[in-house]
Amino acid sequence: INNKGACRALKHFLEGFSRASSLTAPTRSRTTAGRPPVDLCGSFLPATSWQSGVCCRKLHSGADGSKPSPAAAPDRRPFSRITREDLDSFRKIVPGRVITDPDLLESSNVDWLKSVRGSSEVLLRPQTTEEVSKILKYCNGRNLALNPQGGNTGLVGGSVPVYDEIVLSTALMNNILTFDGISGILTCQAGCVLENVSIYLEERDYIMPLDLGAKGSCHIGGNVATNAGGLRLLRYGSLHGTVLGLEVVLADGRVLDCLATLRKDNTGYDLKQLFIGSEGTLGVITAVSILCPRKPKSVNVVFLGCETFEQLLKTFQLCRGMLGEIMSAYEFLDSECMRLLNTHLKLPNPISDCSFYVVIETSGSDPTHDGEKLHNFLEEAMNSSLVTDGTVATEDSKIKALWSMRERVTEALTHDGFTYKYDISLPVERIYQLVTDMREHLGGRAKSVVGYGHVGDGNLHLNITSPAKDPALLAAIEPFVYEWTASCHGSISAEHGLGLKKRNYIYYSKPRQVVALMGDIKAMLDPKGILNPYKTLPDDLK
Amino acid sequence: INNKGACRALKHFLEGFSRASSLTAPTRSRTTAGRPPVDLCGSFLPATSWQSGVCCRKLHSGADGSKPSPAAAPDRRPFSRITREDLDSFRKIVPGRVITDPDLLESSNVDWLKSVRGSSEVLLRPQTTEEVSKILKYCNGRNLALNPQGGNTGLVGGSVPVYDEIVLSTALMNNILTFDGISGILTCQAGCVLENVSIYLEERDYIMPLDLGAKGSCHIGGNVATNAGGLRLLRYGSLHGTVLGLEVVLADGRVLDCLATLRKDNTGYDLKQLFIGSEGTLGVITAVSILCPRKPKSVNVVFLGCETFEQLLKTFQLCRGMLGEIMSAYEFLDSECMRLLNTHLKLPNPISDCSFYVVIETSGSDPTHDGEKLHNFLEEAMNSSLVTDGTVATEDSKIKALWSMRERVTEALTHDGFTYKYDISLPVERIYQLVTDMREHLGGRAKSVVGYGHVGDGNLHLNITSPAKDPALLAAIEPFVYEWTASCHGSISAEHGLGLKKRNYIYYSKPRQVVALMGDIKAMLDPKGILNPYKTLPDDLK
Repeated sequence: INNKGACRALKHFLEGFSRASSLTAPTRSRTTAGRPPVDLCGSFLPATSWQSGVCCRKLHSGADGSKPSPAAAPDRRPFSRITREDLDSFRKIVPGRVITDPDLLESSNVDWLKSVRGSSEVLLRPQTTEEVSKILKYCNGRNLALNPQGGNTGLVGGSVPVYDEIVLSTALMNNILTFDGISGILTCQAGCVLENVSIYLEERDYIMPLDLGAKGSCHIGGNVATNAGGLRLLRYGSLHGTVLGLEVVLADGRVLDCLATLRKDNTGYDLKQLFIGSEGTLGVITAVSILCPRKPKSVNVVFLGCETFEQLLKTFQLCRGMLGEIMSAYEFLDSECMRLLNTHLKLPNPISDCSFYVVIETSGSDPTHDGEKLHNFLEEAMNSSLVTDGTVATEDSKIKALWSMRERVTEALTHDGFTYKYDISLPVERIYQLVTDMREHLGGRAKSVVGYGHVGDGNLHLNITSPAKDPALLAAIEPFVYEWTASCHGSISAEHGLGLKKRNYIYYSKPRQVVALMGDIKAMLDPKGILNPYKTLPDDLK
Repeated sequence: INNKGACRALKHFLEGFSRASSLTAPTRSRTTAGRPPVDLCGSFLPATSWQSGVCCRKLHSGADGSKPSPAAAPDRRPFSRITREDLDSFRKIVPGRVITDPDLLESSNVDWLKSVRGSSEVLLRPQTTEEVSKILKYCNGRNLALNPQGGNTGLVGGSVPVYDEIVLSTALMNNILTFDGISGILTCQAGCVLENVSIYLEERDYIMPLDLGAKGSCHIGGNVATNAGGLRLLRYGSLHGTVLGLEVVLADGRVLDCLATLRKDNTGYDLKQLFIGSEGTLGVITAVSILCPRKPKSVNVVFLGCETFEQLLKTFQLCRGMLGEIMSAYEFLDSECMRLLNTHLKLPNPISDCSFYVVIETSGSDPTHDGEKLHNFLEEAMNSSLVTDGTVATEDSKIKALWSMRERVTEALTHDGFTYKYDISLPVERIYQLVTDMREHLGGRAKSVVGYGHVGDGNLHLNITSPAKDPALLAAIEPFVYEWTASCHGSISAEHGLGLKKRNYIYYSKPRQVVALMGDIKAMLDPKGILNPYKTLPDDLK
């Protein structure tokens, strides 16, 4: 490390801090970043198979003649096929909101990554819990399978049908029901778009306790069903703590009213917890109540560069000690991510080239105090040579620009080729070792091997690209990545869920006894298995 | 309000703040406060019935000939009676740790409040999960009922046997298993005493995310089983968010290993959540992993007086705005509580007489910043005449003294007479109205009607005393208190749980569909119902 150079760069940046350093950065808003419109079909899906409707759901199946990957869809289960009479019945329940036009169904059948595709012929758009209840009661009686769908921004094939499951969209269930300005407790229908709820709250001096790149499309019901993590988990904790109540419709149409709006309630088992992270397999979430934090009066974002991951971790420890209660995010990306941002999205590096980049956000109630804490931290980080370069933002547009460096990595990857995505939880000190080991393990076989994610939560996003689908590459990645993770007692899905793609890998992170009990709960709540079949639970559970 | 006087008092106190105002206060330590030794039998239990072993579990049963209260114990269920062969089997599983001496069993049969008493003849003290598993497997095979017991500090009769259930104590399962100084994740056996874990963590610059008056006795496993709230919930959230993993032994002896030590893990349903708050009715928690916050570098406590509850609420809002992220507690007691503290515990009021008293705690990473925030808040509270008087503590002993004013209210109540205890969650702006309405409703029938609790969480502790058990008084209190709570969509148990005493009141806070599903889950996990029978679930569920 050129320590003298580093010191110079950082002194410049600390001086810049006091005058809110300027930064040339893209103007594309943070909230729509990372989510191209669905019609921007990824180049890695052959247009012919796409347009002809040939199903591409046989994920990773052995084009080379090897046995199908555990991610491949199992055979269609013996659910009923939809009839004209069924459609007539649905039209009575949700008049004018039964969609059968294949063009309109297109975007509901394909996931955002264009990696899986179903062949549903019916999309239902209920507006009320009662309508959802009637639909489910009907489907359960007729043994018709359903795929509950929110914003369809999931990354593991959990949000689209696998075969001909009826798509039950929450898109028209988008009303905010109540907001208590004293307690900060919001209740809303499941189909509210996260960004819309955020705007509603910010006007009332509150914020949502979760934020993620897909906020412009994702639904709060889908967030809860996935147990979405995102960028604020470090500060406000998981949805298991912030969700105070849920209304859920069970497979047989029963409405489970756990929609409490109380911070504390110890009257019996906390059943709503079962549905948080169940990916629509246990019930359809129709309403959510959630505890919202006050809107911070002061937000700062810094973008730093470190030469080694060890320095990045030391910087994290320093940050926790010196920023304390105002630290609200500590995210990272590696130099490979930066290269993809430069190449595919033309986003310039706001600082000099480093091996690792860190986005740190502070949010607090006193701009002067926060500024002082940040300044002291940065001075210390500089003096101890932990960081090489950096820049600071206090204005909203610059904050968004710096955040986009982290948030748009996913989007940059889609332009790099076919992407194998892994979302791994590990003890924080091990997270980058997996990227290094994977690079070494793959040698020249991959196009790019990149690591980014939520350092503060011990959550690595490992992504590997190749020019096209590559079964040999996949065979080199898996089960290596899962075995590596299991050897550290990590989780093979930190925040994305299991969906279709990862369901059979569950045993790398959960013992058989636990998975068996999941199956018992599924059988109890959805005995016919009509809710989001082929997802979450492994195929060997029946 | 004598505003001039108030201003004078507060100016004095703000001046005092900068020199860390002194305070004459009791020296009894916070951690043992509020929990007299078990042999200090409450005066409201007749010594004869106590010593003769006559069972006093028929809670509130109609001495006046009226029908039994819903809190009364139901008939003994047809579990097997323990035999000599059973004892021999237990001695093989936990050699030397099968207690049958009635004197030694005494403290396990009676709750801390001396309000319920069982007649168990066997206490088992396993040291390992394997031993717990063997015990449960044996009991399930023999249809013997068990009462899992931690520190036996519960307030709803959930922690003691009702009839002859075997007491399974976690007292010898008190090892800390691992602690990761980088992530702050602790794993320990269920029988670790909360205070011991806290001391262990503080030596390593961390704290537990929960704290409560019973910390000197309560076990972490019991805390989790009860979903204990306590004094830090406002800042660090509930155990549903901070508990990262559990190891649980199911009724049939199966060990459920959900003991993850990861901040994020979305591989399937989050089954551990079911056991948080299940009061030992679904499984025996044998180990816990929990996310611990950094030890704050700066802690301040202020004790304020307000003339009206409206002012107290306005002070809360001001506090949230001005103290922001450093506010870690906002607790209150009324003047009746203060009278009991003065009378029964000889604790002097540290400030002048007011209608309401508030304990505010701040904890943060920068003593200067925290002091400034607090000073600004106090100045504003004084200038706007929200508070009448107050005092500040920054030193540990004074902090403990001020906290004891809040924490020892429970203890003071035990000296005032037979206590009817209610632990109610309400929208925060309604919490004191219940106390006022109850006083008016009862007229002169009660000795004392007091309110205190966790304002920040909307959690009121309403306590009503009388010289002795008084069925007529009880009939005036209930169902009035529950109907009042239900009319505000509140919870009839915010943090204490339902246990034996409150089980049949569950329908005031939970719809029938939800309670029925609780019964399904109980039947699935414990088909013979051997785990903590007569607790949590209402009698009409079989």
